[in-house]
Amino acid sequence: MNEKTMKMKNLTVLGGGTGSFTLLSGLREHPEMKLDSIVTMMDSGGDSGRLRDEHGILPPGDIRRCIVALSGQRPLLRELFNFRFNEASLNGRSFGNLFYLALTRILKDESKAIEAMAEILQISGRVIPVTLDHAHLVAELEDGSIIRGEGNIDTPKHDTEIPIRRVFLDPAVRSNPDACHAILNSDMVVLAPGNLYTSTIPNLLVGGIPEAIQSTRAPLAYVVNLMTMPGETDNFCATDHVQVIARYAGRMPDVILVRSTKISPGLLRNYRREGSKPVKVDPDRLRSAGVGLVWSADIASETSLVRHDPARTAQALKEVLAHFAGSQPQRLAR
Amino acid sequence: MNEKTMKMKNLTVLGGGTGSFTLLSGLREHPEMKLDSIVTMMDSGGDSGRLRDEHGILPPGDIRRCIVALSGQRPLLRELFNFRFNEASLNGRSFGNLFYLALTRILKDESKAIEAMAEILQISGRVIPVTLDHAHLVAELEDGSIIRGEGNIDTPKHDTEIPIRRVFLDPAVRSNPDACHAILNSDMVVLAPGNLYTSTIPNLLVGGIPEAIQSTRAPLAYVVNLMTMPGETDNFCATDHVQVIARYAGRMPDVILVRSTKISPGLLRNYRREGSKPVKVDPDRLRSAGVGLVWSADIASETSLVRHDPARTAQALKEVLAHFAGSQPQRLAR
Repeated sequence: MNEKTMKMKNLTVLGGGTGSFTLLSGLREHPEMKLDSIVTMMDSGGDSGRLRDEHGILPPGDIRRCIVALSGQRPLLRELFNFRFNEASLNGRSFGNLFYLALTRILKDESKAIEAMAEILQISGRVIPVTLDHAHLVAELEDGSIIRGEGNIDTPKHDTEIPIRRVFLDPAVRSNPDACHAILNSDMVVLAPGNLYTSTIPNLLVGGIPEAIQSTRAPLAYVVNLMTMPGETDNFCATDHVQVIARYAGRMPDVILVRSTKISPGLLRNYRREGSKPVKVDPDRLRSAGVGLVWSADIASETSLVRHDPARTAQALKEVLAHFAGSQPQRLAR
Repeated sequence: MNEKTMKMKNLTVLGGGTGSFTLLSGLREHPEMKLDSIVTMMDSGGDSGRLRDEHGILPPGDIRRCIVALSGQRPLLRELFNFRFNEASLNGRSFGNLFYLALTRILKDESKAIEAMAEILQISGRVIPVTLDHAHLVAELEDGSIIRGEGNIDTPKHDTEIPIRRVFLDPAVRSNPDACHAILNSDMVVLAPGNLYTSTIPNLLVGGIPEAIQSTRAPLAYVVNLMTMPGETDNFCATDHVQVIARYAGRMPDVILVRSTKISPGLLRNYRREGSKPVKVDPDRLRSAGVGLVWSADIASETSLVRHDPARTAQALKEVLAHFAGSQPQRLAR
């Protein structure tokens, strides 16, 4: 496809967590895609949890890191926003979170503070909190036990052998109207990779978001996780992931993005020790489940971890978007 | 004088404290004067003192406020840098100081952190710490007693009846080479108004600064305080101020800037209750002391306090500068 012939497209990304920031940092390099990034606001661990519990404001961790991922500011300023103090009296405080706290106190409005932070960091596109209401994520396990708080589900203290039966928000909250508006006016809605129950699904638990996803004419894409996560998605294949998503979104993804390459055996051994395996992709099962298109591309990069490569994943998403705009022939999974 | 005919001039301001910030905020509006602002680094009170004692870095309060005064950034960012947290766990912490602390930790260099802060706040001109060494201001009173720490001298706990005999730094420190360079290459050196012993003189206690002031070919100007300060300059007239300055600088100011207007009686009554009086100006005594020029202008503005008016003081300084450049006839004090 000719770069210059692609018209400006609206891309709406839903997420939270590292997978989401990776994806956004890649998409930032494509100004021809106008980005709306919808971010989960149910953090409860670490310094974000402290701001939430102690200072009574929305947990800013995920939104701050999305803003940094989309920032066009000089690297020092981006580094500053991810900086944590080691000093005794400030132990573990995140500078970016204190920045957000100060803005909230000055502007007396959490939503305006997020806008101001985005403006100061000169981001491409918009960062939209999925809700401006305060809620905790709660998981009910298959044995009926209840785990409260994103941080406790994400970093399990419970017996990870027992699978999650369902997650919900307490209290139930309404969506930020800007989030629904973005989904309804998008050319493609993308569910970012990330912890399924603690980063992806929380967005779908917010009142109004599933309805917007069901109503939008935009295709729904899902970037499938590369590895399973102990305590959340043990032994999950790609089909398991999309079925959980369909259950909460009320809509099956039209397209999923999966890796085309294998993960090196040495790295797999390390992951296996942590109880994590590659997410298997079975195109036939996916098609029976209702996924229209499995887009397979070289989107993983390996260091001591296997991660989505920002540039290649963004490029693949751009090709998927072009495909749905009708300018590219369908590509089938290998 | 025609605004357009004035060539770019280098103005070096020495100070610290409110009088200094006021002056700089007025001078910021005159881009035809290239500003080098040399700032005292001997703060010991409040949150700056905490950064100094607890975190072992240069006290950033004065330099931060100078940077904000010179900042061309949007008002919200300037407000943010002067913001203090009220939260229990962050009580009294200044956001700007935490910003500086984080930058110092990331860059591992206090001087680079100051430069980075100045760059982020898009300041006009430069802000130069008078020294990069750590020292405390010490006052010896006429009765021989010693008061240690700028904060203790500035906000006296001692008997304010006993005048200050002398001030010195402990340990003795060397100047920042950039500060001397600025003084030597200036078209006019200005001592900002402010607490004489705790904001103005500390700059003159740093090794190398008096020598630079004595060596520079630039005229030395001093913006005289409007009111006396209890415990520091009780009953001081303008001549007393300049004599203290000459003692520490090794050079008498060539020109002093004084108010031409009277302070309203109501305001004077309030000040008198606090032990503060207007600083009397006696042109004859000043001339005998060696001050070449007493420049009298309408530079004071009154609210509940009497302060130097930023715009009018900057304008007066510009006229003084033009005078020394030979383009303006000498104006005598009324």
